[in-house]
Amino acid sequence: MATKKPDYNKLALALHKKLKGKIEITSKGKLKTKTEWSTMYSPGVGAVSSYLYKNPAEARNYTIKRNTVAVVTDGSAVLGLGNLGAIPALPVMEGKCAIFKEMADVDAFPIALGTQDTEEIIAAVKAIAPGFGGINLEDIAAPKCFEIETRLKAELNIPVMHDDQHGTAIVVLAGLINAAKVVEKKFENLRVVVVGAGAAGRAITLLLSLAGIKEIIVTDSKGAIYDGRPDLSGYKKDLAKITNHQKISGDVLQVIDGADAVIGVSGPGTIAKAHVEHMSRQPIVFALANPIPEIMPEDAKRAGAVVVATGRSDMPNQINNSLAFPGIFRGALDNGVKEITDEMKLAAAKKIASLIKKPTADNVIPSIMTPGLVKAVAGVIKSSKK
Amino acid sequence: MATKKPDYNKLALALHKKLKGKIEITSKGKLKTKTEWSTMYSPGVGAVSSYLYKNPAEARNYTIKRNTVAVVTDGSAVLGLGNLGAIPALPVMEGKCAIFKEMADVDAFPIALGTQDTEEIIAAVKAIAPGFGGINLEDIAAPKCFEIETRLKAELNIPVMHDDQHGTAIVVLAGLINAAKVVEKKFENLRVVVVGAGAAGRAITLLLSLAGIKEIIVTDSKGAIYDGRPDLSGYKKDLAKITNHQKISGDVLQVIDGADAVIGVSGPGTIAKAHVEHMSRQPIVFALANPIPEIMPEDAKRAGAVVVATGRSDMPNQINNSLAFPGIFRGALDNGVKEITDEMKLAAAKKIASLIKKPTADNVIPSIMTPGLVKAVAGVIKSSKK
Repeated sequence: MATKKPDYNKLALALHKKLKGKIEITSKGKLKTKTEWSTMYSPGVGAVSSYLYKNPAEARNYTIKRNTVAVVTDGSAVLGLGNLGAIPALPVMEGKCAIFKEMADVDAFPIALGTQDTEEIIAAVKAIAPGFGGINLEDIAAPKCFEIETRLKAELNIPVMHDDQHGTAIVVLAGLINAAKVVEKKFENLRVVVVGAGAAGRAITLLLSLAGIKEIIVTDSKGAIYDGRPDLSGYKKDLAKITNHQKISGDVLQVIDGADAVIGVSGPGTIAKAHVEHMSRQPIVFALANPIPEIMPEDAKRAGAVVVATGRSDMPNQINNSLAFPGIFRGALDNGVKEITDEMKLAAAKKIASLIKKPTADNVIPSIMTPGLVKAVAGVIKSSKK
Repeated sequence: MATKKPDYNKLALALHKKLKGKIEITSKGKLKTKTEWSTMYSPGVGAVSSYLYKNPAEARNYTIKRNTVAVVTDGSAVLGLGNLGAIPALPVMEGKCAIFKEMADVDAFPIALGTQDTEEIIAAVKAIAPGFGGINLEDIAAPKCFEIETRLKAELNIPVMHDDQHGTAIVVLAGLINAAKVVEKKFENLRVVVVGAGAAGRAITLLLSLAGIKEIIVTDSKGAIYDGRPDLSGYKKDLAKITNHQKISGDVLQVIDGADAVIGVSGPGTIAKAHVEHMSRQPIVFALANPIPEIMPEDAKRAGAVVVATGRSDMPNQINNSLAFPGIFRGALDNGVKEITDEMKLAAAKKIASLIKKPTADNVIPSIMTPGLVKAVAGVIKSSKK
């Protein structure tokens, strides 16, 4: 089957060479007449500057700040490809900006940083923030992505979201809500193994916990994370405190025994057929490594999986951040939201899940083409305070 | 006459409120089909990232870097309005980006910085540079603009230009070349007084000197700058060494005696009719403060001025940076130029001047609507090395 698929790598290279940049800037006003020049620019624009000096909050009504999001990366974790740096990350950021515009009419611009130092990244994002209405952090490696996001959220008064963490977690939660329905298990009672303890693995674990799941075990390259594992430090230590209450140790094969769902956010080959065979009845397998999943869907199904999801657009049940981030930022910009809260993330996941009226094994998550998707998500991104 | 003109301030406020941001991002590729998604974004985009990791110079052929310019400000010198800060500067930067696109098809994006510290500005611009093909510094106050530009030019391998300095200087030089023809004086022999020793005054003085003018006197709020003036420091000390060879002291009235041209880059009211009356025969007056010139053209003419230029789009002879910067960056991007050199600035000024075949008092400088303007300027922005 794989051989019949288009060669997306080849097609993508050709498309990028043809487009020479996937986004462009366009002027919303003409510059033909003297009046147009004198109002779009000098001398008339001076009156707008003076007005904003006295009324800075009016930037929302007079400038691009109303609708702009910076898609910021340092290129330290590009897709699943690793630390490629700023320039190789640029096409990914451009693609994200194209998605922002096409799906949600958000004007997003890529900022590919020439530094991978935490403090320098924070300083740069703070420096450029005034002209933006939101910051989408992207493809920044763990663990520094946690500090960068936490600090920027605290220090900026516009929404800041690391999409690899929260966008992924929101869509995983949405898919898992519906997958539980398909296998007729109670969501809160699902026993979940998360394979991969990076940025996405941590965020998924935190959000699933918040959503009510009680039994989660996270594994990294050394096996299950448990409270007391000698080599743990930093955020993994924190993860150990809220997961794996029985302190089970061992590799994936040992901890997956009887699990209802496994969520791979690791890399190709880290979930095997033998793992799936050891799971509880009607296994749920989310193999999200991109472009090559932890286990190919056909293998997972042969091993007994009932619901299989991947991150790929050319397979069923695509766990795709694009289901979440366009609507999240659309809502934040429209509703003057200054911080994306946990409540908003839960609400967004439930809203996305709700768009599938009758979930089936091959349809637990809406498609990015689903009519009304962005509007539905945007609608829940608002302050709950009256 | 002034009362009959449209109220550009009012019109500009209304236009900005209507547009809510003068530029937007558009996607050059569609995102409708699975193939489009898989090539514009994941999984295909990964192949482009991997390719650029191995061939970073190919960013020019595969990403927006080929055609993007950051229009960077700290808002410390917004138009002639002073230190208004980042947000009030934003509409000016947006206008500049609109001009870049409409005139030269350059994709420029405004970066309004939340810091006015020299080192932080330099660090931020260096951090964001990888995704851009050029940096246009804008509305940054003197003297820090000099160090910022010098350092960035040295440390980045893309063209960096502070337009308030060099764009202005190029267009002033172009206008003065033609003004000299109108009054039938030899350009190199012009005696020039530059009123205002800020960023533009310094750059104009340097470029006119390079172009061959031997007698220039620069004045600041304390009068003529001359070698040995007790209070001089920094760049003004340097200016004193290449100007005012006779070390004349005194205010504008005292040094303007017998001058052929006066160039105001100061503020309203700093050039009076009495000044013009003391100039040589057929005075040339460039009153470039925006939006209110140092002297109104009708007053300058009543005092005897033959050629009068301003910075305004609603008056004859507009000394408008937009005549230069779009073509300069167009040429730099197209020709792979890594630094805008003095030779390129001189060549750009001469090229702009040459577009007026027969200069007259009210027509010493082309209009921004002149067909072929951008292409003509872009054509001279290239390395002279074979």
